[in-house]
Amino acid sequence: MAVYTEVTDDDLAAFMAAYDIGDVVSFKGIAEGVENSNYLLVTTRARFILTLYEKRVERGDLPFFLGLMEHLAGRGIECPLPVRGRDGEALRMLCGRPAALVTFLDGVSVRRPTARHCAALGQALAELHAAAEGFPIRRPNALSVAGWRPLAEAARGRSDAVLDGLDAEISAELDHLEAAFARLDLPGGVIHADLFPNNVLFLGERLSGLIDFYFACDDAFAYDVAICLNAWCFEPDLSFNVTKGRALLAAYHAARPLSGPEVDALPTLARGAAIRFLLTRLVDWLDTPPGALVKKLDPLEYLKKLRFHQQAGSAEAFGWRP
Amino acid sequence: MAVYTEVTDDDLAAFMAAYDIGDVVSFKGIAEGVENSNYLLVTTRARFILTLYEKRVERGDLPFFLGLMEHLAGRGIECPLPVRGRDGEALRMLCGRPAALVTFLDGVSVRRPTARHCAALGQALAELHAAAEGFPIRRPNALSVAGWRPLAEAARGRSDAVLDGLDAEISAELDHLEAAFARLDLPGGVIHADLFPNNVLFLGERLSGLIDFYFACDDAFAYDVAICLNAWCFEPDLSFNVTKGRALLAAYHAARPLSGPEVDALPTLARGAAIRFLLTRLVDWLDTPPGALVKKLDPLEYLKKLRFHQQAGSAEAFGWRP
Repeated sequence: MAVYTEVTDDDLAAFMAAYDIGDVVSFKGIAEGVENSNYLLVTTRARFILTLYEKRVERGDLPFFLGLMEHLAGRGIECPLPVRGRDGEALRMLCGRPAALVTFLDGVSVRRPTARHCAALGQALAELHAAAEGFPIRRPNALSVAGWRPLAEAARGRSDAVLDGLDAEISAELDHLEAAFARLDLPGGVIHADLFPNNVLFLGERLSGLIDFYFACDDAFAYDVAICLNAWCFEPDLSFNVTKGRALLAAYHAARPLSGPEVDALPTLARGAAIRFLLTRLVDWLDTPPGALVKKLDPLEYLKKLRFHQQAGSAEAFGWRP
Repeated sequence: MAVYTEVTDDDLAAFMAAYDIGDVVSFKGIAEGVENSNYLLVTTRARFILTLYEKRVERGDLPFFLGLMEHLAGRGIECPLPVRGRDGEALRMLCGRPAALVTFLDGVSVRRPTARHCAALGQALAELHAAAEGFPIRRPNALSVAGWRPLAEAARGRSDAVLDGLDAEISAELDHLEAAFARLDLPGGVIHADLFPNNVLFLGERLSGLIDFYFACDDAFAYDVAICLNAWCFEPDLSFNVTKGRALLAAYHAARPLSGPEVDALPTLARGAAIRFLLTRLVDWLDTPPGALVKKLDPLEYLKKLRFHQQAGSAEAFGWRP
């Protein structure tokens, strides 16, 4: 939620010379994204987001992220389109950092999604999965099941300070999930992997944009659905809203039918998604110094969601109707 | 440089109901201003800045600030115009804080102003001083000479950690300035008091906006000129650029002629302006915990500027030509 690198008017003028996008009308740092520096750039022709990739983004992944957005935008997905310069390149250096311009998308993030928002999200997610087909670059999901145990190790011995018994509860859950995930064999491809409400824009109830593809990777499509069930369908008191779950799942299914094995796997995948966000939030919580620029997110929110999923006997607990 | 208060889409929708300015198209927190939370709001009709006033802004001063912007904008000054709601009010509560919408101004802040920028600034400052005439609300300058000794006291005993001997140097300068300011009797009115390059917008070399009126107050007009000499006419190596000073002063004088006493007072006023920013930066420097959200500014930059002014025998040192 900050601008880490200051781009002066001179820096910007030199950068703009590489593009044919009109003259600068306005340029403001925006408080968006915890990983990168973002500026809203208005020119005489259009609005853009300028992103400077800070150190938490792996530079080798940038062709995947930018290429994916270009691939998706070319197939009708409402996502930022990387803008190529006069030299044909979308990625260049600015202030010592890799930087890219993308088109600006109208819309506002919804803090408390309704069932209609969840339905729109479900449909857009299915369309994203289908549209990504044929994208040639692969990026394994570093935050899938193989990545969870190392995160748990990083927090071991300290997580009991967050909640008594948390170490043991995480460890037991990982024992279960490692075995359960090993049995899964689900269709997959490119997933967004972080499609929280703050990464989805709406104009009223119309979904107008999907943003922040910097966790996108290859994984099971249904795992992306499970992430969204976690992120969109719990109420502020952390009760699961089955109406919202039904809306999300039905809309997804209408656009990209979920297979029997995918539906059967949803409780396992939902548990996996919950522990993934529990663990990354826990490590951030423990490692972030007080007063740092990064907004800390409560890891225990995902413990409560995990416990709900542990009680789910089937996808019907999420609102799925066969 | 941060958003302190998060405004959700629901908060925004409730706030927007008080206005007749179109429907929300986009809403993003911007990294601007160290005192308040600012959002860029785009509607189907226009662009606006939404400001939530955080605790460092005195609520009783808000009618002065908002009234002043409305007064100035009505007289042709390119500054934000507070937008009144359906009830005629420009100031209302949002998320527990006073909040106001103002019009958005195009333009980009210039990091390294040229002499042409300095001339444009000088003219705009003179026009601002003239346009503010007749504004009925008074606001004494809490950061003028009477306010400097208390700031020095707040840093006493700690400032030598910033630079050996700083305590004594500040104290001697204040002895001089308190006597010198007591002898001044200069024309005054509303001044901006913080017209640094980051508060001035340009489209190319055309000045397109003056922003951030939250230090505006009543004081000598020439003191505002002296603040701008400090803020606009030093090079990055802290040498004074007399060409820029001349451009600023000549353009100001052409739009609002400086009297003989004002010109004679410029070295004293420039010293005063330098110690004012030295002291506030010093206190912020000493009081801000490491890792805080606020960007710390180097107080010693203003010590070096002060030492230049101490050597100035007359306004000619700043480029003034009789």
